[in-house]
Amino acid sequence: MPQTKTIKKIVEKIFLNKGLKLKHSKLCAKALINAELVGAPSHGLSRLKMYCERIDKKIINKNPKIKIRKISGSIAHINADNAIGFVAAQLGIDLAIKNAKKNGISLVAIKNSGHYGLSGYYAEQAAKKNLISLCFTNAPPAIAPHGAKKTLFGTNPICFAAPTATKVPFVLDSSVSMINRGKIRVAAKLGKKIQLGVALDKNGNPTTDPKKALQGVQLPIAGFKGSGLAWMVDILSGVFTGGNHGGKVKDPFDDFSGPQNIGHLFIVFKPNLFVKDYLKRIKENIKRIKKLPKLKGVKKIYYPGENKAARFKLNLKKEISIPSNILNEIKMLNKS
Amino acid sequence: MPQTKTIKKIVEKIFLNKGLKLKHSKLCAKALINAELVGAPSHGLSRLKMYCERIDKKIINKNPKIKIRKISGSIAHINADNAIGFVAAQLGIDLAIKNAKKNGISLVAIKNSGHYGLSGYYAEQAAKKNLISLCFTNAPPAIAPHGAKKTLFGTNPICFAAPTATKVPFVLDSSVSMINRGKIRVAAKLGKKIQLGVALDKNGNPTTDPKKALQGVQLPIAGFKGSGLAWMVDILSGVFTGGNHGGKVKDPFDDFSGPQNIGHLFIVFKPNLFVKDYLKRIKENIKRIKKLPKLKGVKKIYYPGENKAARFKLNLKKEISIPSNILNEIKMLNKS
Repeated sequence: MPQTKTIKKIVEKIFLNKGLKLKHSKLCAKALINAELVGAPSHGLSRLKMYCERIDKKIINKNPKIKIRKISGSIAHINADNAIGFVAAQLGIDLAIKNAKKNGISLVAIKNSGHYGLSGYYAEQAAKKNLISLCFTNAPPAIAPHGAKKTLFGTNPICFAAPTATKVPFVLDSSVSMINRGKIRVAAKLGKKIQLGVALDKNGNPTTDPKKALQGVQLPIAGFKGSGLAWMVDILSGVFTGGNHGGKVKDPFDDFSGPQNIGHLFIVFKPNLFVKDYLKRIKENIKRIKKLPKLKGVKKIYYPGENKAARFKLNLKKEISIPSNILNEIKMLNKS
Repeated sequence: MPQTKTIKKIVEKIFLNKGLKLKHSKLCAKALINAELVGAPSHGLSRLKMYCERIDKKIINKNPKIKIRKISGSIAHINADNAIGFVAAQLGIDLAIKNAKKNGISLVAIKNSGHYGLSGYYAEQAAKKNLISLCFTNAPPAIAPHGAKKTLFGTNPICFAAPTATKVPFVLDSSVSMINRGKIRVAAKLGKKIQLGVALDKNGNPTTDPKKALQGVQLPIAGFKGSGLAWMVDILSGVFTGGNHGGKVKDPFDDFSGPQNIGHLFIVFKPNLFVKDYLKRIKENIKRIKKLPKLKGVKKIYYPGENKAARFKLNLKKEISIPSNILNEIKMLNKS
């Protein structure tokens, strides 16, 4: 197995060879490797080949002319010109951080973007700059609206991050499906089964076959509640931003007929707008929750993001573990 | 059964007799009656006696000196001086609407408030003024954090509203518990059972007895996801606003040892900040979803808020239906 640094350099080089700028290639490689290190391989190197294919087919713009429209000190709109999602989203969160630092709150909407990886990756960056953030993005159809038997909503995560009094921020990044679509994709790629109760096949029957699940319907959390949350995210990141919405976001793996035009929305604000002692308050909040009596078998209560940060720290020191078929894909891409 | 107008007048008079200003009495009565009409009696007249008791015990301030601190054109902080939640929240959403109309986005935080009824009631008001809104409030302990066997989070709703091209806005008001606590209270009051799988008793065993459920733990939607969402709401509406948090919000029905100091947070923005044709887009979005093939037995796909609005319209024309024990409470309060 290769070293993290080595594989990151290879991924950078692959993007560079595909025609992306050096800065953009580094940024994409960093985001993909981060997903591996935090334990979300579904959003990591298993997507590299897909990104490269979309660049080859010119439906990801390798040399985008990204336009930023400043609406006020707090509000900006980015037309990403079909840039790879990582580049568009990084620009967006950087701007949202800058504007929030200056004006207390910022709202940055992005249209004509693509899949940007993990929402938590961007929210965490804001938290590490001592800001609270909400990030929304839509995704290709995966979940059926409540009452429908056809998918339309993406797994549309709700993502929230807040600084804590430690180096590890609170980062909630929760898709509104029972499991995320990437996990089903990885299972399909590795020939593994998925658990029962998270998806139906195209005929509406429960299935543990990830391939059948991908053709069928994923189940939302809590029925109409999860469906409603997915709809909210579609409005915020699609209808509102100028991105595609209502089931029109193309599946990046299966549909090469054009760009995705995904929308993203970042809402960022300073944690000490209303209280002087935010860090003391969040520390006390987490302390109270952590010291609650625990269920049998539970040793510790974790806040969202804590586990991912621990995995990141641990994985950074180790050789990176990549399934052989994905390693082969990377080798092929590096040769071509 | 009484007419809606009659009962509203009686409730106004009860609040007035308790010492609230006429304007505040009207506002509280309107919010309580609205909950009845939209079919959420758990947040309606079944709470009247509780509010009155808290006013009598001076832990709801009948004559609050509410302070508004303007931080910027977009940002304001309200210290509600332990006003009844309806009064504090109405002031907050009015200010948030005004600031969003003027500056595109607004953020209003409220501390030292109390239970304000339905989040959707306030979010809907913003939507009817052609604004998008997110509303957060925390609540007394009801849900155990993931891994804990003691309740700490409230049912902490996630509430979002957006204008549609019709008179009926999209209003999602979704508690992160399997069912809302008010429904359990109403069941307890009426001597009815609750369904299995929504709550545990104090020993951690599943129960259908609402009284045992109130002493025990409510279950969050989707395990750690629902728990994480509840934690997010506690940070946004408690830690961030200066309100109580981390399980310190008192139960308004059971704990008369002091004010609740609940926090609320309103984020409101104009829907046409980034697109010129928002109404056309949301109309198209809803249309696409409504015309999906339906599951067997489903005649129509509804967007969140649509059912409530239909119930409101229907109920407005009818006599109001109030359980006899609650009607008796109102009669007693009206005499005293």
